[in-house]
Formats: sequence, C-alpha cells, structure tokens
Amino acid sequence: MNLRLFFSLVGASVLLAAFAHYFTDNEFFQFATSALAIIFLAAWLGKSTESVAHYAGDRIGGFLNATFGNAAELIIAFFLVKEGLFDMVKASITGAIIGNMLLVLGLSVLLGGLKYKEQNFNSRLAGHNASLMTLAIVALFIPAVFMRELAPVKIETLSIVIAILLIVAYILWLIFSMITHSDFLSDIEPHESEAVWSKGVSIVMLAVSTVFVAVVSEWLVHGVQHVSHSLGWSELFVGAFVIAIIGNAAEHSAALLLAMKGRIGAAVEIAIGSSLQIALFVAPTLVLVSLLLGNPMDIVFTPFELAAIGVATFITISITKDGATNWFEGVLLLTVYIILGTAFFFA
Amino acid sequence: MNLRLFFSLVGASVLLAAFAHYFTDNEFFQFATSALAIIFLAAWLGKSTESVAHYAGDRIGGFLNATFGNAAELIIAFFLVKEGLFDMVKASITGAIIGNMLLVLGLSVLLGGLKYKEQNFNSRLAGHNASLMTLAIVALFIPAVFMRELAPVKIETLSIVIAILLIVAYILWLIFSMITHSDFLSDIEPHESEAVWSKGVSIVMLAVSTVFVAVVSEWLVHGVQHVSHSLGWSELFVGAFVIAIIGNAAEHSAALLLAMKGRIGAAVEIAIGSSLQIALFVAPTLVLVSLLLGNPMDIVFTPFELAAIGVATFITISITKDGATNWFEGVLLLTVYIILGTAFFFA
Amino acid sequence: MNLRLFFSLVGASVLLAAFAHYFTDNEFFQFATSALAIIFLAAWLGKSTESVAHYAGDRIGGFLNATFGNAAELIIAFFLVKEGLFDMVKASITGAIIGNMLLVLGLSVLLGGLKYKEQNFNSRLAGHNASLMTLAIVALFIPAVFMRELAPVKIETLSIVIAILLIVAYILWLIFSMITHSDFLSDIEPHESEAVWSKGVSIVMLAVSTVFVAVVSEWLVHGVQHVSHSLGWSELFVGAFVIAIIGNAAEHSAALLLAMKGRIGAAVEIAIGSSLQIALFVAPTLVLVSLLLGNPMDIVFTPFELAAIGVATFITISITKDGATNWFEGVLLLTVYIILGTAFFFA
Repeated sequence: MNLRLFFSLVGASVLLAAFAHYFTDNEFFQFATSALAIIFLAAWLGKSTESVAHYAGDRIGGFLNATFGNAAELIIAFFLVKEGLFDMVKASITGAIIGNMLLVLGLSVLLGGLKYKEQNFNSRLAGHNASLMTLAIVALFIPAVFMRELAPVKIETLSIVIAILLIVAYILWLIFSMITHSDFLSDIEPHESEAVWSKGVSIVMLAVSTVFVAVVSEWLVHGVQHVSHSLGWSELFVGAFVIAIIGNAAEHSAALLLAMKGRIGAAVEIAIGSSLQIALFVAPTLVLVSLLLGNPMDIVFTPFELAAIGVATFITISITKDGATNWFEGVLLLTVYIILGTAFFFA
Repeated sequence: MNLRLFFSLVGASVLLAAFAHYFTDNEFFQFATSALAIIFLAAWLGKSTESVAHYAGDRIGGFLNATFGNAAELIIAFFLVKEGLFDMVKASITGAIIGNMLLVLGLSVLLGGLKYKEQNFNSRLAGHNASLMTLAIVALFIPAVFMRELAPVKIETLSIVIAILLIVAYILWLIFSMITHSDFLSDIEPHESEAVWSKGVSIVMLAVSTVFVAVVSEWLVHGVQHVSHSLGWSELFVGAFVIAIIGNAAEHSAALLLAMKGRIGAAVEIAIGSSLQIALFVAPTLVLVSLLLGNPMDIVFTPFELAAIGVATFITISITKDGATNWFEGVLLLTVYIILGTAFFFA
Repeated sequence: MNLRLFFSLVGASVLLAAFAHYFTDNEFFQFATSALAIIFLAAWLGKSTESVAHYAGDRIGGFLNATFGNAAELIIAFFLVKEGLFDMVKASITGAIIGNMLLVLGLSVLLGGLKYKEQNFNSRLAGHNASLMTLAIVALFIPAVFMRELAPVKIETLSIVIAILLIVAYILWLIFSMITHSDFLSDIEPHESEAVWSKGVSIVMLAVSTVFVAVVSEWLVHGVQHVSHSLGWSELFVGAFVIAIIGNAAEHSAALLLAMKGRIGAAVEIAIGSSLQIALFVAPTLVLVSLLLGNPMDIVFTPFELAAIGVATFITISITKDGATNWFEGVLLLTVYIILGTAFFFA
C-alpha cells in the first residue's frame, strides 16, 4: 500500500478516535473509533518493528519479530490487566490463540486452496510447533485441574512458577530455532523483514507508534466495558472475539495475503508462530506484570477457554502435520471457529 | 449369497416378527424377532441402495451410498426420536460410532492380521478421516462443556446451529472427495456398487425395503423399552450395544469379509466412513428432524458417551495413521471396545 | 562399575539401613537409609535379572526382562498395598510412568542432544508404543469417568475386568513383539542381556536380591508414612516424586548412560517400555494382588494423576513420533515434568 495513503488513514482514524473520546459521550462510537484506530496503529507498529528488525540483522531482528510481533495485543492486554479485567484478559488471550489457529489459518488455507489444488510446506516445523503447543496447553491445563483443591495463595505461586517456566522455554526455543538449529528449519521460506524507512527513522517510528498504540488502547479498554454491558455481551465473548480480532487484524491480513500468493508455509508460520508467542510469552508476561502492578492475576483459565484452546490446537495439529493443505481443511478450521464463536456468544 | 435363499430368510424373519408382534404377548420374543428381521432387512436395504447407486453413475451413486449408507440406523433412530427416547438415540449414535471404529475395525484388523502379516492402505485418507473425526468430536464436545452454564433455550439454539454446520461440512466433504479432489484419493481401491437387479427393479426394491425397515423399526422400538426394563439394563447400554449392533450388523459383516480377503483399505474405509457419516450426518439430521416433530432433541451427549467417542477416535487415529495394520492392533481396538462395553453395562 | 566396589556399596547401604531400622528412632534417618539401600538393591536385582535372561535365551530372556524389569517398583508397591496405602500406590504408579516419560526421557534427550545435533531411532516402534500408551490411558481413564455414578461393588468388578484385560493385552504384546513380529522391529538396536555371573550364580543372585529388596522395601514403606507426615508432604507428592524416583533410579541411570553414548533409541525403548510395563502390567497386577490380600484396591486414579499421565503421554508421543530428537525436545519434556512436580507439591 502507498505509504502516504497509509499514514493518511492512520492519522484520520486516530483523530476520529480522539474526537470521539474527548468530545462525545456515545460510548459505542468511542469504542468503534478507537477499535478502528488500533487496527491501523497495529499495522504501523508492525511495519516499524519489521523495519528495525531489518537493520538489526538476522539474529537480533528475528528476536525482535519474535518478541514484539504481538506488541499491540500485549499493550491492550496490559491496560486490561491494569483495570483488573482479568476475565477479559484471559478471554482475549484465548481469542488470539484460536483466532490465529482457526480463523487466520482457516481463511489462509481456504482462500489459498481455492486457487491452488494443494499447497505444501515444511512439515518438520509443523512437528516442532505441535510439541510446543502441547507444552502451552499442558501449562494452561494443569493449574485449572489442580485449582479446586488449592488455596488462592498456592494458585498464585503455581501461576508464577509456570509463567517463569514458559518464558524460559520460549527463550530456549528462540535459541534453538535461531542459533543452534537455525539450519534445520532453513528450507522454510524465510520471513524477510522489509526496511520501510532508514535506520534512524525506523527506530523513531517504532517508539512513536508504540506510544500511540498505548494511548488508544487505554481508550479502547475504557470503552469496551460499557459496550459489553450495553449490548449484553459476556466478557468472554467480547474478549475472545472482539478484542482479539481488533488486536490481531493487521497480522491476520498479512497471513492471508501470503496464502493467496501461494506462500502457505509463511502463512502457517505466522498463524501458528503467533499463537505460540501468545501462549508462551504474552500470557506468562502478563501474569508477571500483574504482580508488579500489585494486583496479581493467576494463570487459571476457565474450562470453556481451555476447551477452546485444546480443540483448536488438536485440529490444527491434525491438519498441518502432513505438510499439505487444501480448501476443505480450511472449511474444517473455520467450522470449528464458528462453533466456538456461537458457544462463546451464548455462554 | 444366493438371492433366493436371502429373500427366503428376509421373508421368514419378517413373518416371524409380525407373528410375534400381532399374536403374542412375550415382549422379549417380540424384540428378538424384530431385531432379527431388522438385520436381514438392513442387508436388503443395503443391497438395494448399492444397486440403485450403480445405475446412477459414479457421482450420484457415491452420494447415494454416502447418505443412505446408514439408512437403517437412521430409520430406527427416527422412531426412537418420535417416542422421545432421546437418551437411547444418543446412546445408539455413540454405539454406532464406537462399534464401527472399535468392533468392526478391530475384528477386521485382527482377522485380516491372522492371515496376512501386515496389511497396507492409503494413509492419506486416514489423515483426512482423522481431521473430520476431530471436527465431529469438537462439535459434540463443545455443547457438553458449555451446557452447565446455558439456559435450555440457548442449548437448543446452539444444537441447531451445530447441526446445520455439521451437515454443511459433510456436504462440502462429499464435494471435496467426489468432485474437486476425487483424483487425490484415487489410489484407494474403489468401493464398486454392484447391480443386483435391473434399474427399475432396484428402485422398487429400495422403496419397498425402506418401508419394511420402517415398519419393523417401529416394532423394535416398541419392544426395546420393555426389554431394557425387564432385564434391568440401562438405556445407555441397550442403545449403545444392542440397538447399535442390530442396526449396523449388515454393514459390519461386509467390512469383515473384505478384510479377510486382504482388502483392509476397503474395510477401513467402510468402518471409519460409516462413523463419520453417523457423527456428521445422522446425528445432526436427527436433531433437525426432532425439531420438525415438535419435540426438539439437543445435541448434548453425556460425559460417558463423549469419553467413549473420544477414546475410540483417539486410538483409531493412532492405529490407522501409518497406513498399516497387524493383528495386535486389532487386539488393542477390541480391548478398548470390551472395556467400554463393561463400563456402559455397569453404568 | 567394578563388581567388588558395587557389592561393597550394596552391603554398606543395607547394613546402614538395618542399623537405622533396628537401633535408632529417627524416622527420617531410617527412611533415607532404606531409600539409599533400595537404589543399590534395585541395581543388583536388575543385574541379576539380566544375567538370568542371558542364559534363558532370546525369547524367555526377553520375557523375563519384560516382566521383572520393574520388579523393585512392584515389590515396594506390594508392601504399600499390604499397608492399605492405596493413594500412595497409585501416586507411585503415576510417578513411575511420568518419571520415565518426562524425567528420564527428557534428560536422555537433553544430554544426548547437547552432544549430538540430532539423534535418530526407529519411529515404527514409537508408533506402536503410542497405541499401547493410548490403551493404557483409556483403561485408567474410563473407570474414573464412570466412577461417580457407580456403586463401590461395581467399581471393584470393573477394576478387576480392566486389570485382567490389560494383563492379557500385555501378554499378547509380548507375543507380538517377541514371536510373530519380532523381525518387524529388528532394525532396532537390541537390548542385549549381559551375563555377569555363571548361570547357577545368576539364579541364586536373582533370588537373594529379590529377598533383600523385599525386606528393605518393608522398612521403606514403614518409614515413608512418618516422613510424609512430619514434612507435611502429601501422599500424592511422596508417592509420585519420592517413591517413584527411588524405585526406578537404577533403571533411569542406565537409560541416561545409553543416551549419552548416542544410543538414543535404546534409551527411548527403556523409558517408554518401562512406562508401558508399569501401566499395563504392574498396575493391574497390584489390583489383582490386593484382591488376594483381602483388601481390594480399585483402579480409579484421581483427576490429577490422570491429567499427569495424559499430558505426559501426549507430549511424549508428539516428540517421539518423528523418530528424531534434539536438545530442545528434552527441555520440553523436563519443563512439563517440573510443572507437574510443582502442581503435585502444592496439591
């Protein structure tokens, strides 16, 4: 997209959101405009991250992409944590994971599959991703199983231990995939970071876009509670299907474009990689951040959320393990997404 | 089998069932004779379907086999739904799914494996079947997880949405496997529909056998309640292990014969394909039919049933994914079947 | 290790344990010394079994290894059963299964992976093991699901039926892997039984070491209750993480040594084979033995134990199914072990 047009859209959407926030009282309008602005800002933040990553070289750049790839999601969740909206935080984590695995991957596989009869990718990566997702599920599943019998203080300690273990495992995974075994996964089409601006400008862009995302995220979080109440939607549904989609829209469209160009491997990598990052890095980071904010959030998800993450992972593993996709597999993923969406809507 | 002998058996069994129904009072005798008649009638209905499918050509014929393959099962379940015996309907759906995956596949693999050291088949189909079964499990599992928190009205709506989604997914699967990607699975030994009679006679046979199955199914359903009460057997056990076996006996014996001739691929296709058809087509159709009958049945299965379907699917996927079978894998499937049977019997 | 040194250690540890048992009152000291003695005695029992197996020839020797491989574990559990410490028995079974799959396999894969970039092994065996583990999980999972609704008498009967089925399946697996399809798995590096002593001495050694293990196991079981109470540790944790590690230490170190020599296939075989033996042979044998002792133990595990066994199996299958391992996969297994250990400690 033309950069000038892009920044016009970013600017217009942010101005509109600011106008709604400071000069109107209509909470639905405030929410809608800040949601729109976040979508554009997240795209800007994404571009800036990639541009900085380009200049930082392969290794540090890869690390930047791996940790800041879900920065917008993380910032929104931060303000939800700050407001003590723990149920919505967990729902948005759940929604981001299943949105990546079912909606994005489903649409990518379906749209790619309508154009190409079969699309292939490196199934070795799929195998590793499956093992990592299994770890993530175990880590989220265990505290929920044990919770009924544990005192709150023990749940908190267990949450912290698990959060630290997940972050350590995630760092070791980065070391594995970028340092000790980078050649292993080298036949995967690399995700090349594109330089949009010069080095100095890129860093400034990253800083400025992060600030803007933070400001508008606070507006969004402010509005979301009222909207969810006035529409009568549960926190579970709003977190999992509204917040999660807003926070990930930019990334989602990138995966779709790649799939339609026949690069299904890159689309799979983005969709599953992003799910892993949220489960193994964003979720535990939020647990630790909540501790610093003095209002500790545990890592116990509801049975609904665990069921959703579990079935999403299970069917995604089933579909990606052979390293080939076709349109019907996209239909399967999307069907599961719609079933989960309907169930969350009614819950 | 000789056709004349076959029809003699069909006729004799139906006459015996009619005699029991109209002229005796012994409910166990009534049940036993109508069960025997259903087994023969289901075989007749199966032959008629195949014969019509043969004249209808590959595509429509395949579609006929795919939708009418479990016609007897569907008709029996229809009368159970009409009588409001929802627990027994769900138990019989459960029993048909696990019966196909554990009993039929288990016996096929075991008996085939006693003759051939290793039997191989197309593992690509197995992969697709695994993904479809996962969808089926997700679809049955989600309402059960969410049920505790939902009002009955919402459960009903959710059931209808899921039923429609499953039927759409099943139709898309038929389009995928028979139209857009039929060549994909073409190295699978095709299941050829055999023409037993001329075209006109076949259609008449299909109509007549359907009527007979319907009539005797009503007798069977009438008797089954009394028998289950007088024997002290639970609806769960009777539905899952008596009704399900009676309704599927004809199909089961076909799979066994194929396996013993070394055609394990065709046997796997029948057993798993039939399970899929029941989960993705028969079960949701019954939910929608119950709506039309004015006495809506939800799609919420008991934890026992879900556990049974889940473990059956899990071990079947584990055993079929390598595209090779041996006698010990048959033992594993049968052992799980016996464990489930014992547990259902005691429940 | 030098045999003379080895027996000096065995002798010293047993004398120390005997001294603690008969001449001191410190229960922690009694427990620690009998635990140490059991570790050495289990190693002696293992050597004796192997030595007898060597002389018994391939077939009977393999059978001996397969049934007496966890003899120390079985003997300790026997005394726990005799004391009626059923919770600890089940916890120790759980701990032995997850300890083999997560701790031993995790350390083997990690340490082997630090030396070799990738280690490969026969993935066909992994597939069969996965199916067998699935059977084991089903067998342990089903009674727990059905338990709430069943009367104690029915639970007992169901437990006995399942125990017998598992032992039959295990015997058939031995027939499959050692007789009808021994060539199938023949490209697996065989585990050769080593002859340490002459035939006659080996048999004497087996008998004597078994007696010693039995005597000291009784001391251990006597002490473990007091220790668990005075430390405030739950039976669940003590059984799963103390008893299980003590009973399996000798075997664990053997697997580790093999992995560090690059023989990851043999290490995988020991770790998973031992888990299977415990789930399919030791656990059901204890159920039947408890019946003979007149104080029947059921086969119902707690949700925590089932969750632990389930996730351990799930991630182990995920990691071993491609027939290749690397250091990061070891990290994954160990992370899950630590998460489970923390959760059990708090429970």
